[in-house]
Amino acid sequence: MIKAGIIGATGYAGAELVRILLGHKEVEIKWYGSRSYIDQKYAQLYQNMFQLVEDTCLDDNIEELAKQVDVIFTATPQGFLGGVLTEEILKNTRIVDLSADYRIKDVDTYEKWYKIEHKSPQFINEAVYGLCEINREQVKGARLVANPGCYTTCSILTAYPLVKEGLIDPDTLIIDAKSGTSGAGRGAKVNNLFCEVNENMKAYGVATHRHTPEIEEQLGYAAGKEITVSFTPHLVPMNRGILATEYASLVKKEDGTYPTKEEIRAAYNKYYEKETFVRVLEEGVCPETKWVEGSNYVDVNFVIDERTGRVVMMGALDNLVKGAAGQAVQNMNLLFGFPEDEGLKLVPMFP
Amino acid sequence: MIKAGIIGATGYAGAELVRILLGHKEVEIKWYGSRSYIDQKYAQLYQNMFQLVEDTCLDDNIEELAKQVDVIFTATPQGFLGGVLTEEILKNTRIVDLSADYRIKDVDTYEKWYKIEHKSPQFINEAVYGLCEINREQVKGARLVANPGCYTTCSILTAYPLVKEGLIDPDTLIIDAKSGTSGAGRGAKVNNLFCEVNENMKAYGVATHRHTPEIEEQLGYAAGKEITVSFTPHLVPMNRGILATEYASLVKKEDGTYPTKEEIRAAYNKYYEKETFVRVLEEGVCPETKWVEGSNYVDVNFVIDERTGRVVMMGALDNLVKGAAGQAVQNMNLLFGFPEDEGLKLVPMFP
Amino acid sequence: MIKAGIIGATGYAGAELVRILLGHKEVEIKWYGSRSYIDQKYAQLYQNMFQLVEDTCLDDNIEELAKQVDVIFTATPQGFLGGVLTEEILKNTRIVDLSADYRIKDVDTYEKWYKIEHKSPQFINEAVYGLCEINREQVKGARLVANPGCYTTCSILTAYPLVKEGLIDPDTLIIDAKSGTSGAGRGAKVNNLFCEVNENMKAYGVATHRHTPEIEEQLGYAAGKEITVSFTPHLVPMNRGILATEYASLVKKEDGTYPTKEEIRAAYNKYYEKETFVRVLEEGVCPETKWVEGSNYVDVNFVIDERTGRVVMMGALDNLVKGAAGQAVQNMNLLFGFPEDEGLKLVPMFP
Amino acid sequence: MIKAGIIGATGYAGAELVRILLGHKEVEIKWYGSRSYIDQKYAQLYQNMFQLVEDTCLDDNIEELAKQVDVIFTATPQGFLGGVLTEEILKNTRIVDLSADYRIKDVDTYEKWYKIEHKSPQFINEAVYGLCEINREQVKGARLVANPGCYTTCSILTAYPLVKEGLIDPDTLIIDAKSGTSGAGRGAKVNNLFCEVNENMKAYGVATHRHTPEIEEQLGYAAGKEITVSFTPHLVPMNRGILATEYASLVKKEDGTYPTKEEIRAAYNKYYEKETFVRVLEEGVCPETKWVEGSNYVDVNFVIDERTGRVVMMGALDNLVKGAAGQAVQNMNLLFGFPEDEGLKLVPMFP
Repeated sequence: MIKAGIIGATGYAGAELVRILLGHKEVEIKWYGSRSYIDQKYAQLYQNMFQLVEDTCLDDNIEELAKQVDVIFTATPQGFLGGVLTEEILKNTRIVDLSADYRIKDVDTYEKWYKIEHKSPQFINEAVYGLCEINREQVKGARLVANPGCYTTCSILTAYPLVKEGLIDPDTLIIDAKSGTSGAGRGAKVNNLFCEVNENMKAYGVATHRHTPEIEEQLGYAAGKEITVSFTPHLVPMNRGILATEYASLVKKEDGTYPTKEEIRAAYNKYYEKETFVRVLEEGVCPETKWVEGSNYVDVNFVIDERTGRVVMMGALDNLVKGAAGQAVQNMNLLFGFPEDEGLKLVPMFP
Repeated sequence: MIKAGIIGATGYAGAELVRILLGHKEVEIKWYGSRSYIDQKYAQLYQNMFQLVEDTCLDDNIEELAKQVDVIFTATPQGFLGGVLTEEILKNTRIVDLSADYRIKDVDTYEKWYKIEHKSPQFINEAVYGLCEINREQVKGARLVANPGCYTTCSILTAYPLVKEGLIDPDTLIIDAKSGTSGAGRGAKVNNLFCEVNENMKAYGVATHRHTPEIEEQLGYAAGKEITVSFTPHLVPMNRGILATEYASLVKKEDGTYPTKEEIRAAYNKYYEKETFVRVLEEGVCPETKWVEGSNYVDVNFVIDERTGRVVMMGALDNLVKGAAGQAVQNMNLLFGFPEDEGLKLVPMFP
Repeated sequence: MIKAGIIGATGYAGAELVRILLGHKEVEIKWYGSRSYIDQKYAQLYQNMFQLVEDTCLDDNIEELAKQVDVIFTATPQGFLGGVLTEEILKNTRIVDLSADYRIKDVDTYEKWYKIEHKSPQFINEAVYGLCEINREQVKGARLVANPGCYTTCSILTAYPLVKEGLIDPDTLIIDAKSGTSGAGRGAKVNNLFCEVNENMKAYGVATHRHTPEIEEQLGYAAGKEITVSFTPHLVPMNRGILATEYASLVKKEDGTYPTKEEIRAAYNKYYEKETFVRVLEEGVCPETKWVEGSNYVDVNFVIDERTGRVVMMGALDNLVKGAAGQAVQNMNLLFGFPEDEGLKLVPMFP
Repeated sequence: MIKAGIIGATGYAGAELVRILLGHKEVEIKWYGSRSYIDQKYAQLYQNMFQLVEDTCLDDNIEELAKQVDVIFTATPQGFLGGVLTEEILKNTRIVDLSADYRIKDVDTYEKWYKIEHKSPQFINEAVYGLCEINREQVKGARLVANPGCYTTCSILTAYPLVKEGLIDPDTLIIDAKSGTSGAGRGAKVNNLFCEVNENMKAYGVATHRHTPEIEEQLGYAAGKEITVSFTPHLVPMNRGILATEYASLVKKEDGTYPTKEEIRAAYNKYYEKETFVRVLEEGVCPETKWVEGSNYVDVNFVIDERTGRVVMMGALDNLVKGAAGQAVQNMNLLFGFPEDEGLKLVPMFP
């Protein structure tokens, strides 16, 4: 039984961590950190936790916390962890950071897209990008895991095998992503009011969304070169779920023909057949966000469009689970040698 | 490890049984019965179950099934179980019936409200009404459990302590209930299309809904006399959840005063303090359906309206869990001596 | 062509006034008042108005405004109009107040329920309660119209004929009302975020909602005596619409029998047959909020529950139209002698 | 005052025609055609029309209807009009066809994508594609107008100026479109049930949707050559609205530079500045479906992504209005010389 602390426990991702960890056999939550609600009962902020969580919220004291727990989850705004992290902390505990502070290896890129000065770039190199299906082995020995973003997890896993195998031209990659509203957080903003989101759909952050460089960096590793992608997020009137529809031109093979659907499928199977949490759907079945809701699954599939020479790749996940808290727990399981699916045997809820 | 069969596995309640039983340590599902989808892969009908359930749907052969499994769940339309049940079947297996066939003790009442002839009334007396919090001991020894309706579970548990303790006049009881749309089932009907339900709200079955006599019978036992209540169901644009708002006149005590909120609360605590699945909320907190979504909880609370001499009682549950499949599993746990919450430690999902 | 000003033009009710008045032949909007958005383009706050409204928002200067326009709509928080109204203003213009400041005749009742000191009670007597179907003639000559609340309009019109005709006992009246979320306004509050409201339902303000005394006062006039009702509002995951389900005991006639459905229907017809905006639905049809969305209609109907001796009355309206801006325009039409339905021939939008 | 008949009046598009025509000064609906609901009162199928429409539904007798009315709207399944149209009918009346039967000039293409034999190809050439903003003059003299599809209207108008002006390479065009559920019609299908659509998002018809050839044909005219595009529709949990997000590579100018945002904007203005129903939004504002709901507007805008050399174009419309019934009325207005916006001065409803 290890001890865990959550800083930022009162945001939606923090609350999802609580939900998942309550069902984890090897973890006990010792610290519900929340700058905004110090001394308030956690279950009063999340009434679903009534009689399940008796703790009150504590201040965000990461140095103190590091001495008390085996692992800290930081579900905090960008810049928080970067501003407080020290070697001392990392000596005392392990950290799974759900913010973007340690996801991007190039500090300039981080500072340009996030418009924040990085206060502790010295830890960037050591941080492991926690996309378990791709970096499993590196995660196992890490002190600091940079938990991937919700859009990025979906976007990368949907295209990864085809980029890695050179079946598509990564510079033609266009990612049209759609997200439920919990991705916008629990902050009180007019834009996120029920009446503004419901019965509505829009793109936002067009050509400027911060998940773009993260996708480009990771898929660039797979491609073996720097790449540039188009990424457009959209807001959808639903609580949870991300759907990524991705378009790329197929690369002609040496014999002048294009990859067949069997070859594309083989590529997906090569990387995901043994993965618990990535499901390559049967031919003709498009991923739907509802089919993964509440679970740690990513459902992926593809359609070849022979007329245009493109492949349309699709991926769906629950932004709060595989896109945030679930993946964080999966990383924690790797860090501590627990079964990778411990606490994550969550059957998707439908309807 | 016991074996279970589900007849009607492809309706929403049947699918929720599958979701819950997949997480139950002591049960293995051996039979996915579905008259409409014989020989079709179950996971093609419920893609959330992809790679989790490999079985195909089987015909609804309850006699054969009874020989193979320890418990049968019938998540079937009214009249099905009544039409096929035999002593032979009950000798071979136990049955938790999610339909209304054995909920109402008076056959005439059943036939009048359901407009169906009851084909095997000889089993009605033996059937135990499976509202665990009230009939726990009787359930334990039963062969045939009549699993309560979704509206009824919510309506009864919300008012039960006050009726039982004589604090309200049961004949003044008015139940205004609101349900998510999964309660209407997965049948293809124009009325249940997204565009007809979304952004809409209506009452239906006013003064004629079939859950009325079930509520009256059960609360009548609590009151110690026959009672008549007003019950109005409403359709709400959400997938899951029932909210019951109930009104009744407080009964004057012998000293001429009305029960205080402390006395009302004491009555709730008397019956629910030790119950895992009924949560009496703190003063001033109104139950919300989202706080119990995906879980087996019923949240209840009340407000005294001194101006009118009435108490407003409120209860919320997930119609597919505590209102159907979750309660069915709770009953099964009682039948087989498993911990009552096995498979049901489901933390509500928010948002 | 008259000139109108709107104070509080950037709330949802204010915006709905703009939508309706843009289609009104006899009115020109001269003033888009908004304390929060002074000098900002109105169409940037409500992009639906892009290229339809070129004006910028102006400060809430009612004295100045009164000199420039023939009618002022105040779609402002409680207490605003009470705090600024003067005889001078009323000499210069007419006012339709969408707040509660002049709805309740008894100042103490107002101050008790609203917890605000009334700063200009001297105008309360002269104010006419603008429920057009009931107070049509008084509205015509008024300087100051108190536009009814959304819940109240629905609640009163649904029960009015039966109270007025003495067919029900008003002290048994229980109003269970359900509202879309636009009723909560455009303020940035966590409780009204999409993720908090969507897939959720709850009661709120139980036994304490401010529309209660307004309903009691108006139905009390109809009853010819003071009455007390139970009123419970609920929040529903939809943008617009109020549904009121109302319960009351039928009053025995002198011959000992209860009113028949023909008698009940006759009472509704007596008051509403000639009304443009109240539709008494055909027998067996329950009002649905979607059927009146975007229009000024109130749909009403009833079911007699012979078993309990009660009648269940139901009413549905669009809270922003008949429940706010539409009724305000209807009042304005009466004030200026325009056809009562001018600007209000809005066909409900479905789906 | 002209007379109009609607064949297929009981689908969502037909019902929207009724809603719009009820507010049109120059048209009277004489025929509510519906094969499924003959002799049933129209207002019982669309209760929003209660007391507004007294007619009953009539059989789909187009020959008889053609003698009685000046214009027929066919809001019917593909193949219907193709199967019944005759020269005699076209001599007697004008037709605005909301189906796809006469949209595509090449019969083979029609038959291949629609998998229907075209029964009266002799009228295809004469039919005018009724995208008013582009084919205004040809529509005016037509006997037969092929009203464009919902996705196509949005997709084409969003990209048209840039294709027409040669600013983008049309063969790089990728259209990712999202639609509300009313586009799926009022048929009772499990896939369109509330619980299947709500809280869910998916792509469908990937690489095979029938609107693809229509988009390619029309944008091909603008490009002056045959083009091939990727088009992917998605189902969104909302009643109304289509959002198209479109990606294309900018074409280098002769001087080796790419078009600037001023040049792109100038292209949009060139075609849309004088258009009533196309609104080019201000820089930085992304179209949202809610801002056009209930109206005939299309909102368009764009963002240049300098990193990728692509432009992201966005368009939003109400699929039942500008995407179906509104555009049909706009076409009718052109046919009969009415003001183009008669009956269409519909202010978008928000929220």
